[in-house]
Amino acid sequence: MMHSVADRKLVEVCYTPGQYHLYKENFDIVVVIDVLRATSAITTALHCGVKAIIPVSSVEEARAYKAQGYIAGAERDGQVVEGFDFGNSPYAYMGEEMRGKTVVLTTTNGTKAIQMASDREIVVIGSLNNLDYLCRWLIEQHRNTLILASGWKDKINLEDTICAGAIADCLLETRKFRADEDSTVAAKFIYRSAREHLWSFLRASSHRRRLIKLNIQRDVKYCLTLNTVPCIPILQNGMLVKLDYTPSEKASRSVTNDAL
Amino acid sequence: MMHSVADRKLVEVCYTPGQYHLYKENFDIVVVIDVLRATSAITTALHCGVKAIIPVSSVEEARAYKAQGYIAGAERDGQVVEGFDFGNSPYAYMGEEMRGKTVVLTTTNGTKAIQMASDREIVVIGSLNNLDYLCRWLIEQHRNTLILASGWKDKINLEDTICAGAIADCLLETRKFRADEDSTVAAKFIYRSAREHLWSFLRASSHRRRLIKLNIQRDVKYCLTLNTVPCIPILQNGMLVKLDYTPSEKASRSVTNDAL
Repeated sequence: MMHSVADRKLVEVCYTPGQYHLYKENFDIVVVIDVLRATSAITTALHCGVKAIIPVSSVEEARAYKAQGYIAGAERDGQVVEGFDFGNSPYAYMGEEMRGKTVVLTTTNGTKAIQMASDREIVVIGSLNNLDYLCRWLIEQHRNTLILASGWKDKINLEDTICAGAIADCLLETRKFRADEDSTVAAKFIYRSAREHLWSFLRASSHRRRLIKLNIQRDVKYCLTLNTVPCIPILQNGMLVKLDYTPSEKASRSVTNDAL
Repeated sequence: MMHSVADRKLVEVCYTPGQYHLYKENFDIVVVIDVLRATSAITTALHCGVKAIIPVSSVEEARAYKAQGYIAGAERDGQVVEGFDFGNSPYAYMGEEMRGKTVVLTTTNGTKAIQMASDREIVVIGSLNNLDYLCRWLIEQHRNTLILASGWKDKINLEDTICAGAIADCLLETRKFRADEDSTVAAKFIYRSAREHLWSFLRASSHRRRLIKLNIQRDVKYCLTLNTVPCIPILQNGMLVKLDYTPSEKASRSVTNDAL
Protein backbone atom coordinates (compact mmCIF):
# COMPACT_ATOMS: atom_id res chain seq x y z
CA MET A 1 0.00 0.00 0.00
CA MET A 2 1.36 3.43 -0.94
CA HIS A 3 1.16 6.06 1.74
CA SER A 4 0.94 9.72 0.86
CA VAL A 5 3.81 11.81 2.20
CA ALA A 6 1.49 13.26 4.84
CA ASP A 7 0.67 9.78 6.19
CA ARG A 8 4.28 8.79 6.51
CA LYS A 9 5.78 8.46 9.95
CA LEU A 10 9.29 9.62 10.78
CA VAL A 11 12.22 7.27 11.17
CA GLU A 12 15.43 9.01 12.21
CA VAL A 13 18.87 8.04 13.51
CA CYS A 14 20.71 9.69 16.42
CA TYR A 15 24.39 8.65 16.59
CA THR A 16 25.11 9.22 20.26
CA PRO A 17 23.33 9.68 23.63
CA GLY A 18 24.97 13.13 23.84
CA GLN A 19 22.92 14.30 20.85
CA TYR A 20 19.66 12.65 21.95
CA HIS A 21 18.19 15.95 23.21
CA LEU A 22 18.55 17.42 19.70
CA TYR A 23 16.50 14.64 18.14
CA LYS A 24 14.03 13.26 20.65
CA GLU A 25 11.01 15.51 20.11
CA ASN A 26 8.07 14.03 18.20
CA PHE A 27 9.03 10.38 18.63
CA ASP A 28 6.78 7.69 20.13
CA ILE A 29 9.19 4.78 19.86
CA VAL A 30 12.94 4.78 20.61
CA VAL A 31 15.05 1.83 19.47
CA VAL A 32 18.29 1.65 21.49
CA ILE A 33 21.27 0.00 19.81
CA ASP A 34 24.62 -1.09 21.22
CA VAL A 35 25.70 -3.88 18.89
CA LEU A 36 29.02 -4.53 20.65
CA ARG A 37 27.68 -5.82 22.99
CA ALA A 38 24.97 -4.61 25.39
CA THR A 39 21.85 -4.78 23.24
CA SER A 40 22.95 -8.02 21.56
CA ALA A 41 23.40 -9.52 25.04
CA ILE A 42 20.06 -8.20 26.32
CA THR A 43 18.18 -9.55 23.30
CA THR A 44 19.90 -12.91 23.69
CA ALA A 45 19.27 -13.04 27.42
CA LEU A 46 15.51 -12.54 27.16
CA HIS A 47 15.32 -14.98 24.25
CA CYS A 48 17.17 -17.59 26.33
CA GLY A 49 14.77 -17.31 29.25
CA VAL A 50 16.04 -14.51 31.48
CA LYS A 51 12.82 -13.08 32.94
CA ALA A 52 13.80 -9.41 33.07
CA ILE A 53 16.82 -7.11 32.91
CA ILE A 54 17.04 -3.95 35.00
CA PRO A 55 19.34 -1.51 33.18
CA VAL A 56 21.17 0.88 35.51
CA SER A 57 23.58 3.70 34.64
CA SER A 58 26.22 3.35 37.33
CA VAL A 59 28.36 0.60 38.79
CA GLU A 60 27.29 1.85 42.26
CA GLU A 61 23.62 1.16 41.47
CA ALA A 62 24.50 -2.31 40.20
CA ARG A 63 26.46 -2.94 43.44
CA ALA A 64 23.49 -1.81 45.53
CA TYR A 65 21.20 -4.28 43.73
CA LYS A 66 23.81 -7.01 44.11
CA ALA A 67 23.94 -6.36 47.87
CA GLN A 68 20.17 -6.95 47.90
CA GLY A 69 20.68 -10.38 46.36
CA TYR A 70 20.13 -9.65 42.67
CA ILE A 71 22.23 -11.25 39.97
CA ALA A 72 24.16 -8.30 38.53
CA GLY A 73 26.48 -7.74 35.59
CA ALA A 74 28.76 -4.76 35.01
CA GLU A 75 30.99 -3.80 32.11
CA ARG A 76 33.26 -0.79 31.67
CA ASP A 77 35.64 -0.26 28.73
CA GLY A 78 34.89 -3.73 27.41
CA GLN A 79 35.82 -5.58 30.59
CA VAL A 80 33.88 -7.12 33.48
CA VAL A 81 34.06 -4.77 36.48
CA GLU A 82 35.84 -6.14 39.55
CA GLY A 83 33.41 -7.71 41.99
CA PHE A 84 30.98 -8.80 39.26
CA ASP A 85 30.72 -12.24 37.69
CA PHE A 86 29.84 -11.16 34.17
CA GLY A 87 29.52 -8.13 31.89
CA ASN A 88 27.91 -7.78 28.49
CA SER A 89 29.01 -10.96 26.73
CA PRO A 90 25.93 -12.58 25.14
CA TYR A 91 27.34 -15.96 26.11
CA ALA A 92 27.02 -15.05 29.80
CA TYR A 93 23.23 -15.09 29.50
CA MET A 94 22.64 -18.40 27.78
CA GLY A 95 23.06 -20.77 30.72
CA GLU A 96 20.41 -22.76 32.61
CA GLU A 97 21.21 -20.85 35.82
CA MET A 98 19.93 -17.58 34.29
CA ARG A 99 16.47 -18.83 33.32
CA GLY A 100 13.58 -17.13 35.03
CA LYS A 101 15.91 -14.71 36.80
CA THR A 102 15.82 -10.93 36.98
CA VAL A 103 19.28 -9.56 36.17
CA VAL A 104 20.69 -6.08 36.85
CA LEU A 105 23.09 -4.73 34.20
CA THR A 106 25.28 -1.66 33.73
CA THR A 107 27.49 -1.12 30.68
CA THR A 108 29.76 1.65 29.37
CA ASN A 109 27.32 2.97 26.78
CA GLY A 110 24.20 0.88 26.24
CA THR A 111 22.44 1.02 29.59
CA LYS A 112 22.92 4.80 29.78
CA ALA A 113 21.26 5.17 26.40
CA ILE A 114 18.34 3.01 27.58
CA GLN A 115 17.84 5.10 30.70
CA MET A 116 18.00 8.30 28.64
CA ALA A 117 15.40 7.00 26.18
CA SER A 118 12.95 6.14 28.95
CA ASP A 119 11.39 9.60 28.65
CA ARG A 120 9.60 8.40 25.48
CA GLU A 121 6.45 6.29 25.37
CA ILE A 122 7.98 3.06 24.07
CA VAL A 123 11.60 1.88 24.33
CA VAL A 124 12.71 -1.29 22.56
CA ILE A 125 16.10 -2.88 22.01
CA GLY A 126 17.72 -3.40 18.61
CA SER A 127 20.72 -5.39 17.44
CA LEU A 128 21.86 -7.15 14.31
CA ASN A 129 20.69 -10.38 15.97
CA ASN A 130 17.01 -9.35 15.98
CA LEU A 131 17.06 -7.06 12.93
CA ASP A 132 14.34 -8.54 10.71
CA TYR A 133 12.01 -9.42 13.54
CA LEU A 134 12.30 -5.93 15.04
CA CYS A 135 11.79 -4.22 11.66
CA ARG A 136 8.59 -6.19 11.07
CA TRP A 137 7.25 -5.07 14.42
CA LEU A 138 8.25 -1.42 13.86
CA ILE A 139 6.53 -1.40 10.46
CA GLU A 140 3.37 -2.84 12.01
CA GLN A 141 3.37 -0.18 14.75
CA HIS A 142 3.77 2.64 12.20
CA ARG A 143 4.71 5.29 14.75
CA ASN A 144 7.38 8.00 14.72
CA THR A 145 10.53 6.00 15.44
CA LEU A 146 13.93 7.25 16.63
CA ILE A 147 16.89 4.89 16.47
CA LEU A 148 19.35 5.82 19.21
CA ALA A 149 22.85 4.43 18.74
CA SER A 150 24.83 4.13 21.95
CA GLY A 151 28.14 4.96 20.29
CA TRP A 152 31.36 4.95 22.27
CA LYS A 153 31.62 7.57 25.03
CA ASP A 154 29.46 9.97 23.03
CA LYS A 155 31.35 9.45 19.78
CA ILE A 156 29.78 7.74 16.77
CA ASN A 157 30.75 4.12 16.13
CA LEU A 158 30.48 2.16 12.92
CA GLU A 159 28.65 -0.97 14.07
CA ASP A 160 25.78 0.88 15.73
CA THR A 161 25.50 3.27 12.78
CA ILE A 162 25.33 0.35 10.34
CA CYS A 163 22.63 -1.39 12.41
CA ALA A 164 20.66 1.87 12.72
CA GLY A 165 21.06 2.47 8.98
CA ALA A 166 19.77 -1.04 8.26
CA ILE A 167 16.62 -0.44 10.33
CA ALA A 168 16.04 2.99 8.78
CA ASP A 169 16.58 1.64 5.27
CA CYS A 170 14.11 -1.18 5.88
CA LEU A 171 11.41 1.14 7.23
CA LEU A 172 11.94 3.72 4.48
CA GLU A 173 11.68 1.04 1.80
CA THR A 174 8.07 0.40 2.82
CA ARG A 175 7.26 4.04 1.91
CA LYS A 176 5.21 4.20 5.09
CA PHE A 177 8.06 6.16 6.71
CA ARG A 178 10.12 9.21 5.80
CA ALA A 179 13.42 10.70 7.05
CA ASP A 180 14.17 14.42 7.35
CA GLU A 181 17.55 14.31 9.08
CA ASP A 182 20.92 14.05 7.32
CA SER A 183 22.06 11.68 10.09
CA THR A 184 19.49 9.17 8.83
CA VAL A 185 20.42 9.57 5.17
CA ALA A 186 24.11 9.15 6.04
CA ALA A 187 23.46 6.04 8.20
CA LYS A 188 21.49 4.49 5.34
CA PHE A 189 24.38 5.07 2.92
CA ILE A 190 26.93 3.70 5.38
CA TYR A 191 24.80 0.57 5.80
CA ARG A 192 24.49 0.18 2.03
CA SER A 193 28.27 0.56 1.61
CA ALA A 194 28.83 -2.04 4.31
CA ARG A 195 26.17 -4.69 3.81
CA GLU A 196 27.93 -6.84 1.24
CA HIS A 197 31.08 -7.15 3.31
CA LEU A 198 30.19 -6.30 6.87
CA TRP A 199 33.06 -8.10 8.51
CA SER A 200 35.83 -6.48 6.47
CA PHE A 201 34.08 -3.13 6.72
CA LEU A 202 34.09 -3.36 10.48
CA ARG A 203 37.75 -4.26 10.49
CA ALA A 204 38.17 -0.49 10.33
CA SER A 205 35.98 0.03 13.40
CA SER A 206 37.74 1.53 16.39
CA HIS A 207 35.59 -0.39 18.85
CA ARG A 208 36.17 -3.72 17.17
CA ARG A 209 39.89 -3.07 17.38
CA ARG A 210 39.39 -2.30 21.06
CA LEU A 211 37.54 -5.60 21.54
CA ILE A 212 40.12 -7.60 19.60
CA LYS A 213 42.67 -6.49 22.18
CA LEU A 214 40.38 -7.98 24.82
CA ASN A 215 40.37 -11.32 22.98
CA ILE A 216 36.61 -11.63 22.59
CA GLN A 217 36.44 -12.48 18.91
CA ARG A 218 33.73 -15.08 19.60
CA ASP A 219 31.46 -12.36 21.02
CA VAL A 220 32.12 -10.03 18.11
CA LYS A 221 31.27 -12.73 15.60
CA TYR A 222 28.05 -13.52 17.49
CA CYS A 223 27.00 -9.87 17.66
CA LEU A 224 27.65 -9.28 13.95
CA THR A 225 25.49 -12.23 12.83
CA LEU A 226 22.07 -11.27 11.48
CA ASN A 227 18.66 -12.51 12.46
CA THR A 228 19.56 -15.25 14.89
CA VAL A 229 17.30 -14.11 17.75
CA PRO A 230 13.55 -13.57 17.20
CA CYS A 231 13.05 -11.48 20.34
CA ILE A 232 12.29 -7.82 21.06
CA PRO A 233 13.15 -6.54 24.54
CA ILE A 234 10.81 -3.74 25.63
CA LEU A 235 11.12 -1.42 28.64
CA GLN A 236 8.23 -1.76 31.09
CA ASN A 237 8.30 -0.17 34.55
CA GLY A 238 12.07 0.24 34.38
CA MET A 239 12.66 -3.39 33.38
CA LEU A 240 13.42 -4.92 30.00
CA VAL A 241 11.13 -7.86 29.26
CA LYS A 242 10.40 -9.93 26.18
CA LEU A 243 7.68 -8.44 23.99
CA ASP A 244 4.88 -10.85 23.13
CA TYR A 245 4.86 -10.64 19.33
CA THR A 246 4.03 -12.93 16.44
CA PRO A 247 4.59 -11.38 13.01
CA SER A 248 1.47 -11.26 10.86
CA GLU A 249 1.38 -13.72 7.94
CA LYS A 250 1.83 -11.13 5.19
CA ALA A 251 4.90 -9.68 6.89
CA SER A 252 6.61 -13.02 7.34
CA ARG A 253 9.02 -12.76 4.40
CA SER A 254 12.48 -11.41 5.11
CA VAL A 255 12.45 -7.63 5.16
CA THR A 256 16.18 -6.97 5.22
CA ASN A 257 18.88 -8.06 2.83
CA ASP A 258 20.07 -11.45 4.04
CA ALA A 259 23.27 -11.03 2.05
CA LEU A 260 24.56 -8.76 4.85
CA MET B 1 57.52 7.70 0.22
CA MET B 2 56.03 5.12 2.59
CA HIS B 3 55.75 6.17 6.20
CA SER B 4 55.82 3.63 9.00
CA VAL B 5 52.67 3.57 11.10
CA ALA B 6 54.52 5.33 13.91
CA ASP B 7 55.43 8.26 11.60
CA ARG B 8 51.88 8.77 10.43
CA LYS B 9 50.01 11.83 11.60
CA LEU B 10 46.36 11.74 12.59
CA VAL B 11 43.58 13.00 10.36
CA GLU B 12 40.14 12.86 11.99
CA VAL B 13 36.65 14.21 11.33
CA CYS B 14 34.35 15.82 13.91
CA TYR B 15 30.78 16.22 12.63
CA THR B 16 29.57 19.11 14.78
CA PRO B 17 30.89 21.93 16.99
CA GLY B 18 29.00 20.35 19.91
CA GLN B 19 31.31 17.32 19.75
CA TYR B 20 34.53 19.31 19.23
CA HIS B 21 35.59 18.93 22.88
CA LEU B 22 35.56 15.13 22.47
CA TYR B 23 37.96 15.25 19.53
CA LYS B 24 40.21 18.29 19.81
CA GLU B 25 43.11 16.95 21.88
CA ASN B 26 46.35 16.20 20.05
CA PHE B 27 45.62 18.26 16.96
CA ASP B 28 47.86 21.01 15.60
CA ILE B 29 45.71 22.01 12.64
CA VAL B 30 41.92 22.40 12.53
CA VAL B 31 40.17 22.67 9.16
CA VAL B 32 36.74 24.29 9.57
CA ILE B 33 34.10 23.40 6.97
CA ASP B 34 30.69 24.93 6.27
CA VAL B 35 30.12 24.15 2.61
CA LEU B 36 26.65 25.77 2.47
CA ARG B 37 27.80 28.53 2.59
CA ALA B 38 30.11 30.24 5.11
CA THR B 39 33.46 28.65 4.33
CA SER B 40 32.81 28.67 0.58
CA ALA B 41 32.06 32.38 0.85
CA ILE B 42 35.13 33.13 3.01
CA THR B 43 37.44 31.26 0.64
CA THR B 44 35.93 33.09 -2.33
CA ALA B 45 36.13 36.47 -0.60
CA LEU B 46 39.84 36.25 0.17
CA HIS B 47 40.56 34.91 -3.31
CA CYS B 48 38.67 37.85 -4.84
CA GLY B 49 40.68 40.43 -2.94
CA VAL B 50 38.95 40.95 0.41
CA LYS B 51 41.85 41.76 2.74
CA ALA B 52 40.59 40.04 5.90
CA ILE B 53 37.46 38.57 7.48
CA ILE B 54 36.76 38.87 11.18
CA PRO B 55 34.52 35.94 12.19
CA VAL B 56 32.26 36.69 15.14
CA SER B 57 29.78 34.40 16.90
CA SER B 58 26.86 36.72 17.55
CA VAL B 59 24.77 39.18 15.57
CA GLU B 60 25.33 41.68 18.42
CA GLU B 61 29.11 41.59 17.89
CA ALA B 62 28.63 42.09 14.16
CA ARG B 63 26.36 45.08 14.88
CA ALA B 64 28.96 46.59 17.22
CA TYR B 65 31.61 46.35 14.49
CA LYS B 66 29.19 47.82 11.97
CA ALA B 67 28.57 50.77 14.28
CA GLN B 68 32.34 51.35 14.26
CA GLY B 69 32.27 51.62 10.46
CA TYR B 70 33.21 48.09 9.45
CA ILE B 71 31.55 46.36 6.51
CA ALA B 72 29.61 43.56 8.18
CA GLY B 73 27.61 40.54 7.02
CA ALA B 74 25.21 38.43 9.06
CA GLU B 75 23.29 35.27 8.27
CA ARG B 76 20.87 33.28 10.41
CA ASP B 77 18.84 30.30 9.22
CA GLY B 78 19.97 30.86 5.64
CA GLN B 79 18.83 34.47 5.40
CA VAL B 80 20.49 37.87 5.66
CA VAL B 81 19.80 39.34 9.10
CA GLU B 82 17.78 42.55 9.11
CA GLY B 83 19.99 45.61 9.18
CA PHE B 84 22.81 43.93 7.25
CA ASP B 85 23.51 44.22 3.53
CA PHE B 86 24.71 40.70 2.93
CA GLY B 87 25.06 37.28 4.54
CA ASN B 88 27.06 34.25 3.44
CA SER B 89 26.42 34.15 -0.30
CA PRO B 90 29.77 33.77 -2.08
CA TYR B 91 28.51 36.16 -4.76
CA ALA B 92 28.31 38.95 -2.18
CA TYR B 93 32.10 38.99 -1.90
CA MET B 94 33.15 39.12 -5.53
CA GLY B 95 32.56 42.79 -6.28
CA GLU B 96 35.09 45.57 -6.78
CA GLU B 97 33.77 47.42 -3.72
CA MET B 98 34.97 44.60 -1.42
CA ARG B 99 38.59 44.60 -2.56
CA GLY B 100 41.14 45.49 0.09
CA LYS B 101 38.45 45.71 2.75
CA THR B 102 38.22 44.04 6.16
CA VAL B 103 34.81 42.42 6.56
CA VAL B 104 33.08 41.24 9.75
CA LEU B 105 30.92 38.11 9.40
CA THR B 106 28.60 36.07 11.60
CA THR B 107 26.73 32.98 10.36
CA THR B 108 24.44 30.34 11.88
CA ASN B 109 27.06 27.62 12.12
CA GLY B 110 30.37 28.38 10.42
CA THR B 111 31.70 31.37 12.31
CA LYS B 112 30.93 29.69 15.65
CA ALA B 113 32.96 26.68 14.59
CA ILE B 114 35.86 28.95 13.60
CA GLN B 115 35.84 30.71 16.96
CA MET B 116 35.68 27.38 18.77
CA ALA B 117 38.64 26.02 16.79
CA SER B 118 40.80 29.04 17.62
CA ASP B 119 42.13 27.23 20.71
CA ARG B 120 44.37 25.15 18.41
CA GLU B 121 47.68 26.29 16.89
CA ILE B 122 46.54 26.60 13.26
CA VAL B 123 43.00 27.14 11.91
CA VAL B 124 42.34 27.03 8.17
CA ILE B 125 39.16 27.06 6.12
CA GLY B 126 38.01 24.24 3.85
CA SER B 127 35.31 23.97 1.21
CA LEU B 128 34.70 22.00 -1.95
CA ASN B 129 35.90 25.08 -3.86
CA ASN B 130 39.47 24.86 -2.48
CA LEU B 131 39.62 21.10 -1.91
CA ASP B 132 42.69 20.05 -3.92
CA TYR B 133 44.71 23.11 -3.08
CA LEU B 134 43.99 22.73 0.63
CA CYS B 135 44.78 18.99 0.61
CA ARG B 136 48.17 19.63 -1.00
CA TRP B 137 49.01 22.13 1.71
CA LEU B 138 47.82 19.82 4.52
CA ILE B 139 49.92 16.96 3.13
CA GLU B 140 52.98 19.23 3.00
CA GLN B 141 52.45 20.35 6.59
CA HIS B 142 52.17 16.74 7.81
CA ARG B 143 50.75 17.65 11.22
CA ASN B 144 47.89 16.10 13.24
CA THR B 145 44.82 17.47 11.45
CA LEU B 146 41.24 17.66 12.70
CA ILE B 147 38.48 18.44 10.21
CA LEU B 148 35.66 20.23 12.01
CA ALA B 149 32.34 20.22 10.15
CA SER B 150 30.01 23.03 11.17
CA GLY B 151 26.87 20.92 10.71
CA TRP B 152 23.45 22.46 11.22
CA LYS B 153 22.68 23.58 14.78
CA ASP B 154 24.88 20.83 16.21
CA LYS B 155 23.44 18.11 14.00
CA ILE B 156 25.47 16.42 11.27
CA ASN B 157 24.86 17.54 7.69
CA LEU B 158 25.67 15.69 4.49
CA GLU B 159 27.56 18.33 2.52
CA ASP B 160 30.07 19.10 5.27
CA THR B 161 30.53 15.39 6.00
CA ILE B 162 31.21 14.68 2.32
CA CYS B 163 33.75 17.50 2.11
CA ALA B 164 35.41 16.35 5.35
CA GLY B 165 35.44 12.77 4.06
CA ALA B 166 37.06 13.92 0.80
CA ILE B 167 39.87 15.66 2.68
CA ALA B 168 40.39 12.70 5.03
CA ASP B 169 40.38 10.24 2.12
CA CYS B 170 42.95 12.31 0.24
CA LEU B 171 45.30 12.58 3.23
CA LEU B 172 44.91 8.89 4.13
CA GLU B 173 45.69 7.84 0.55
CA THR B 174 49.20 9.30 0.91
CA ARG B 175 49.82 6.83 3.76
CA LYS B 176 51.46 9.67 5.64
CA PHE B 177 48.32 9.95 7.78
CA ARG B 178 46.17 7.55 9.79
CA ALA B 179 42.64 7.69 11.27
CA ASP B 180 41.60 6.09 14.56
CA GLU B 181 38.05 7.43 14.88
CA ASP B 182 34.94 5.77 13.39
CA SER B 183 33.64 9.24 12.49
CA THR B 184 36.53 9.53 10.02
CA VAL B 185 36.02 6.08 8.54
CA ALA B 186 32.29 6.77 8.14
CA ALA B 187 32.90 10.18 6.52
CA LYS B 188 35.30 8.59 4.06
CA PHE B 189 32.69 5.99 3.08
CA ILE B 190 29.97 8.62 2.73
CA TYR B 191 32.27 10.63 0.45
CA ARG B 192 33.06 7.55 -1.62
CA SER B 193 29.34 6.75 -1.95
CA ALA B 194 28.65 10.31 -3.03
CA ARG B 195 31.53 11.35 -5.25
CA GLU B 196 30.26 9.99 -8.54
CA HIS B 197 26.90 11.73 -8.21
CA LEU B 198 27.29 14.51 -5.71
CA TRP B 199 24.38 16.59 -6.85
CA SER B 200 21.77 13.84 -6.74
CA PHE B 201 23.23 12.56 -3.47
CA LEU B 202 22.77 15.96 -1.90
CA ARG B 203 19.21 16.15 -3.12
CA ALA B 204 18.57 14.15 0.04
CA SER B 205 20.31 16.74 2.20
CA SER B 206 18.10 18.51 4.70
CA HIS B 207 20.09 21.73 4.46
CA ARG B 208 19.96 21.82 0.70
CA ARG B 209 16.17 21.44 0.90
CA ARG B 210 16.19 24.32 3.37
CA LEU B 211 18.19 26.46 0.94
CA ILE B 212 16.01 25.56 -2.03
CA LYS B 213 13.12 27.09 -0.15
CA LEU B 214 15.18 30.27 0.06
CA ASN B 215 15.66 30.27 -3.71
CA ILE B 216 19.43 30.34 -3.73
CA GLN B 217 20.10 27.53 -6.17
CA ARG B 218 22.88 29.57 -7.80
CA ASP B 219 24.76 29.68 -4.49
CA VAL B 220 24.28 25.97 -3.89
CA LYS B 221 25.65 25.12 -7.33
CA TYR B 222 28.65 27.38 -6.75
CA CYS B 223 29.41 25.86 -3.35
CA LEU B 224 29.17 22.28 -4.66
CA THR B 225 31.65 22.86 -7.50
CA LEU B 226 35.13 21.49 -6.90
CA ASN B 227 38.49 23.18 -7.13
CA THR B 228 37.51 26.56 -8.48
CA VAL B 229 39.31 28.66 -5.86
CA PRO B 230 43.05 28.18 -5.17
CA CYS B 231 43.01 29.97 -1.83
CA ILE B 232 43.41 28.89 1.82
CA PRO B 233 42.05 31.25 4.47
CA ILE B 234 44.03 31.04 7.72
CA LEU B 235 43.19 32.52 11.12
CA GLN B 236 45.79 35.04 12.34
CA ASN B 237 45.18 37.28 15.34
CA GLY B 238 41.44 36.67 15.16
CA MET B 239 41.23 37.50 11.45
CA LEU B 240 41.02 35.21 8.43
CA VAL B 241 43.57 36.14 5.79
CA LYS B 242 44.82 34.51 2.62
CA LEU B 243 47.67 32.07 3.22
CA ASP B 244 50.71 32.69 1.04
CA TYR B 245 51.19 29.29 -0.55
CA THR B 246 52.52 27.92 -3.81
CA PRO B 247 52.27 24.14 -4.13
CA SER B 248 55.60 22.42 -4.68
CA GLU B 249 56.19 21.07 -8.19
CA LYS B 250 55.89 17.40 -7.29
CA ALA B 251 52.53 17.96 -5.59
CA SER B 252 51.02 19.84 -8.49
CA ARG B 253 48.99 16.99 -9.92
CA SER B 254 45.37 16.68 -8.83
CA VAL B 255 45.12 14.90 -5.52
CA THR B 256 41.35 14.39 -5.38
CA ASN B 257 39.03 12.65 -7.76
CA ASP B 258 37.92 15.27 -10.25
CA ALA B 259 34.95 13.10 -11.21
CA LEU B 260 33.18 14.39 -8.09
